[in-house]
Amino acid sequence: MKVSVFIGTSVDGFIARPNGDLDFLPEGGGEPHGYNEFIAGVDAIVIGRKTFETVLTLQVWPYGDKRVVVLSSRPLDFSPVRGGAVEQMTGPPAEIVSKLAASGAHHLYVDGGITIQRFLRAGLIQRLIITRVPVLIGDGIPLFGALPRDLRLRHLATQHYPSGLVKSEYDVAE
Amino acid sequence: MKVSVFIGTSVDGFIARPNGDLDFLPEGGGEPHGYNEFIAGVDAIVIGRKTFETVLTLQVWPYGDKRVVVLSSRPLDFSPVRGGAVEQMTGPPAEIVSKLAASGAHHLYVDGGITIQRFLRAGLIQRLIITRVPVLIGDGIPLFGALPRDLRLRHLATQHYPSGLVKSEYDVAE
Repeated sequence: MKVSVFIGTSVDGFIARPNGDLDFLPEGGGEPHGYNEFIAGVDAIVIGRKTFETVLTLQVWPYGDKRVVVLSSRPLDFSPVRGGAVEQMTGPPAEIVSKLAASGAHHLYVDGGITIQRFLRAGLIQRLIITRVPVLIGDGIPLFGALPRDLRLRHLATQHYPSGLVKSEYDVAE
Repeated sequence: MKVSVFIGTSVDGFIARPNGDLDFLPEGGGEPHGYNEFIAGVDAIVIGRKTFETVLTLQVWPYGDKRVVVLSSRPLDFSPVRGGAVEQMTGPPAEIVSKLAASGAHHLYVDGGITIQRFLRAGLIQRLIITRVPVLIGDGIPLFGALPRDLRLRHLATQHYPSGLVKSEYDVAE
């Protein structure tokens, strides 16, 4: 099982404003920078309740018809979801990965700040694809959080785009 | 007057550990990635007291024989400095820039988290050169802090290096 992150952040490391707004991201996600190719190779997407609620406010459901697992111990209303295959799970990251592996998933995409941080702390992320949007917003929901120890990364590739997006791919080395 | 930042951070945005340690940076600053060329074009370096104290613990004084201005309202002991031209100033960022411009400086290098953040908040930084070191450390002294408003950046160039350093240069657009 491979677990990946593909996310955009401000240069100062925020994935959303304090209230969840994404207005500092380029419209429509900016010029193509590999998201479609990335998500084509993903079997399931794992997000938290807050990201689920943010995603519901977007014009387009960004996960296509992929299997989406929302982590929450509270009841969730999936009725606003159009076209997506959404289910709910609860439990620690290792258990979620095991369950999804048992159901045939080989490549998970973990999205949303809290969920990414939980999976990183649990040592369960193998691939980080981070796209820096050329702006400093000063405050917001950070991509990264506390860790039990350093996580060494192995740089795989960096590309930049005319609008100023800079995408770097890393493997978590240990 | 042009004011620049040239700094290394972990991928999660820290320029030092909580206690000021820089042990997560590659030894000797990593492979050459333009620091010597950058500093050759600088007339004066502006740092805060904490950065001054951290720099004193390094094996090598990193600023060569360049003019270094330490911002502090408290008395400072410059006797441990070997070979550098160090002086003290105090005052708000705009005043420091004016004083240095009046004394003939055309290009300032602002270094250290607190000082960089003060100058960014004051809208006085034109150029950001940020080198990401491939590691997540989870906690530390952040490069960036709160801002009165968004600062749009203009991406100029990104280079990556065999060790995994990724250096991006930006102009502050407004």
